[in-house]
Amino acid sequence: MPPENLFEESADDTRTAIMEATYRALTEYGYAGLTIQRIADKFEKSKSLLYHHYDGKDDLLVDFLEFVLDYAESNVPRSGDEPAPRRLTAFLDSVFPPDPTTDDEFVGVFVQLRAQAVQDDAYECHFTQSDRYFRQHVAGIIEDGIEEGTFREVDAEQSAAFLVSLVNAALTERTTTDDPDALRAVRAEVDDYLETRLFANDRRRDR
Amino acid sequence: MPPENLFEESADDTRTAIMEATYRALTEYGYAGLTIQRIADKFEKSKSLLYHHYDGKDDLLVDFLEFVLDYAESNVPRSGDEPAPRRLTAFLDSVFPPDPTTDDEFVGVFVQLRAQAVQDDAYECHFTQSDRYFRQHVAGIIEDGIEEGTFREVDAEQSAAFLVSLVNAALTERTTTDDPDALRAVRAEVDDYLETRLFANDRRRDR
Repeated sequence: MPPENLFEESADDTRTAIMEATYRALTEYGYAGLTIQRIADKFEKSKSLLYHHYDGKDDLLVDFLEFVLDYAESNVPRSGDEPAPRRLTAFLDSVFPPDPTTDDEFVGVFVQLRAQAVQDDAYECHFTQSDRYFRQHVAGIIEDGIEEGTFREVDAEQSAAFLVSLVNAALTERTTTDDPDALRAVRAEVDDYLETRLFANDRRRDR
Repeated sequence: MPPENLFEESADDTRTAIMEATYRALTEYGYAGLTIQRIADKFEKSKSLLYHHYDGKDDLLVDFLEFVLDYAESNVPRSGDEPAPRRLTAFLDSVFPPDPTTDDEFVGVFVQLRAQAVQDDAYECHFTQSDRYFRQHVAGIIEDGIEEGTFREVDAEQSAAFLVSLVNAALTERTTTDDPDALRAVRAEVDDYLETRLFANDRRRDR
């Protein structure tokens, strides 16, 4: 689930500069076309510096995924003032827009990198951790909502796993199929699920 | 959603023999390690025959995906005798087992091939069609269930899109993460969703 504005300001340290070069090379060439040379071409410093820091393309890419996850974690809105239903809907809107466009360069790169986890344990370890992070984030919102009375007394972890799976599917379907109507149908059913299964019936007074 | 028993009997025609060789090379080497030579090594006939039929690895792999989808379509149980809730649960069990093991060679290959759709229109066209086929299959079961009174009067296409997304996510998570508990939680919530949102309350008398 890639965040927006990852490199709004220009990089002020070597790792961030490498990450920015990686990001630009990835969106241009995709995973299959990516080489250390092509990352170096986007980078003012030397290719040997990249080899000094990383064992190769996949080692660098797993570090890139950690970098993106760290950014996402440090930029999650922590507002305790907003009611939980609104926080959950805002989170879903950011990763699974109600009117999703198919195709998105960054999301596509992410889907390609995730597929590397099928055969590479370092990628698998990263995606196990990142799915877990997003599940905990969503479960935290649901638990807050149960406490404030805006959510039903559901199994927060089970509902969170369900919602994160739906987000993962939407990211994949957005970039590997061309069917915006299907994506809109899934999101509409997600909203119905929130209304009928998660949100308390009388929560509107709390909004 | 790969079917079982795809090549139970040995291939009796050239295309099926090529498909079987592709399947065996894919599960051994994965997408990245696959070459026409490695497919030819699993194949009794010549490598030039492969080049005669296909423009290259990706052309062959898209045909392989069509072959698997055709097989899945022709092997879907068409029993009109079973009540719709049981048919839907049986379909889900076959692609998203209640107690899923992480890791599955064939599913992993499928996830790798799907990621090619990010940058290759022929793969994207295939996955757009195959998701559509599975949505129509699930929507058909839901419509039958509404007619026989075992399902609520839901929007069949919207519910089907939702369930197919959950299946796609489960296939991806099974092969790119190592977290069976999370998969079990998603499936448990899928079952709760079926009971509370799709199945009619009094359907038990129809089972």
